[in-house]
Amino acid sequence: MPAPFSAQDVYDAYARIRDLIYCTPLEESICLGGSGRRYFFKLECAQTVKSFKIRGALSKMTTLGPEQRRRGVATVSSGNHGAAVSCAAGLLGIPNAVIIVPEATPQAKVDRIRFYGGSVLLMGRDYNEAHALGSAYIAAHGLTYIDPYYDDPKIYGGQGTISLEILRQNPGIDTIVCPIGGGGLITGIAVAAKALSPDIRIIGVQTEVCPAMIAALRDHVLYEEYPVTGPSVCDALTGGVGALSFSMLGDLATDVLAVKETSVREAVRHMVLKEKTVVEGGGAAALAAVLEQPERVGGKNVALVMSGGNIDGALLQEILAAAPSAAENRKRD
Amino acid sequence: MPAPFSAQDVYDAYARIRDLIYCTPLEESICLGGSGRRYFFKLECAQTVKSFKIRGALSKMTTLGPEQRRRGVATVSSGNHGAAVSCAAGLLGIPNAVIIVPEATPQAKVDRIRFYGGSVLLMGRDYNEAHALGSAYIAAHGLTYIDPYYDDPKIYGGQGTISLEILRQNPGIDTIVCPIGGGGLITGIAVAAKALSPDIRIIGVQTEVCPAMIAALRDHVLYEEYPVTGPSVCDALTGGVGALSFSMLGDLATDVLAVKETSVREAVRHMVLKEKTVVEGGGAAALAAVLEQPERVGGKNVALVMSGGNIDGALLQEILAAAPSAAENRKRD
Repeated sequence: MPAPFSAQDVYDAYARIRDLIYCTPLEESICLGGSGRRYFFKLECAQTVKSFKIRGALSKMTTLGPEQRRRGVATVSSGNHGAAVSCAAGLLGIPNAVIIVPEATPQAKVDRIRFYGGSVLLMGRDYNEAHALGSAYIAAHGLTYIDPYYDDPKIYGGQGTISLEILRQNPGIDTIVCPIGGGGLITGIAVAAKALSPDIRIIGVQTEVCPAMIAALRDHVLYEEYPVTGPSVCDALTGGVGALSFSMLGDLATDVLAVKETSVREAVRHMVLKEKTVVEGGGAAALAAVLEQPERVGGKNVALVMSGGNIDGALLQEILAAAPSAAENRKRD
Repeated sequence: MPAPFSAQDVYDAYARIRDLIYCTPLEESICLGGSGRRYFFKLECAQTVKSFKIRGALSKMTTLGPEQRRRGVATVSSGNHGAAVSCAAGLLGIPNAVIIVPEATPQAKVDRIRFYGGSVLLMGRDYNEAHALGSAYIAAHGLTYIDPYYDDPKIYGGQGTISLEILRQNPGIDTIVCPIGGGGLITGIAVAAKALSPDIRIIGVQTEVCPAMIAALRDHVLYEEYPVTGPSVCDALTGGVGALSFSMLGDLATDVLAVKETSVREAVRHMVLKEKTVVEGGGAAALAAVLEQPERVGGKNVALVMSGGNIDGALLQEILAAAPSAAENRKRD
């Protein structure tokens, strides 16, 4: 069976969106590396809406016909995807974008989505309820549903455009390290990267409190939901996996590993204080993997996908105010 | 007398450098604005080497002939300009870049310059001595001197390319707010912006502890050196003014104002915690002006040039750990 998603989807997506997005920096770390190993940050935290999600949203929304555009678009997401759909609609002149979020969504997230021009509807007590009610609303109103990330090759194609930039910015990259939530980002990245550079190594990273993809690949079971076993600073990385990603990632990923939450906090701290870049928890997971398990991550010229920069200000202050970790102290010795 | 620097220098510079730099984001602030006023951050802190200085360095160095390239380039700067010349030489394949810095330069700054491939020479007890000794060294070795910022139309032309991007990214911008050190950045920006949009307002910002350009324009005296009257978190904004900038800025700037050091710290804090972007003190001066004197800054669609992101990690921690200022508390009421 041919894969329902291929590198051609990524090339096509890039042709549609490249003038609408930033080619984000691929900047080498001054602080990390050595011993024949160099690390390069792909700074999607500096993308429009401070997240890679705008790539997928634009990729999908640039394929809509006049009637779909006239009726409008919708999604269910209080996070970066919701803000990205709101912003993308504005960029494309789609007059109606409805972003459905759970009733308990913090006002700051609602304000952020509205800032970009979309309408916010509050539905349901949690994300599952919001999704059920929202899907019915979207169908009833004839809106086009913009999948948050699970199973749309157009969305995957947009996320994969990151690889086209990375390998143009530095053709010597041999390893790409990428966080995994539902799996759309890493699958898009892996398919495009391997088309351009077949031997490239793809390393996925999850948080220890929700290693859904690791379990899914190990058990050969599509865990569309998965328990979260503790507090996490990586909201974007918790939840189940997408069917399309699950069906492809076993062949694409060199390794998928879980990192400790303490490593993620250390990575956020490192990025702000040493690399002078604000990243959100999930967006720092690739660096957390390097700090925690550098040999397992491996590679000589390693690109770390820093996927987003929307961290809560109070959380960021808490992370920065914390005493340096044992690992940081060790490095100072 | 025709101006020795015009918008044509900026257009020519952009043709030479545009494929070598990032078109940095112009992102609207979600937190600021209201009352018919919108603020847009031009994020040169996300530029290569985390500063606008790479624009001027590349603009100059792309005009060198084969013999000049073969002999190599040099400058006297321990800051962003030194790192930019080091990096630009690498990007352009110029084999020899000598960066002269005072003997007391912190190791981290030396390491940063070397990281990009340039050679570092330590000369003199302070910047004045380094400049005197360095100039002699540069002449003796037949190197091409890349002026840090004072008086080279090629450098000014590079810095001015920021305006071409701003006005393409948002043609409705009516005011640009920009920090002033020697004056190269604001002069480049003003000349290009006024060529494209003659009524645009240009607001310069200095730190209260070294208002050299304000004094120079008021007194009609070229202060090539100027006292620094207190501690500053804006090292890039202290020192005297450039002759070329001084000769032009009186006609170009709508206003030049000084901001308090406490406002600069508040601006850095705001950028990190609310806008999720790390800026250095001098790089945050434009925002400091808006926080401190919004009516005087004025404008409806206001671009704030965030000129650099290289802040010392310990200083950043100190600024973020500080209790919220009275102004911040006021805004929360």
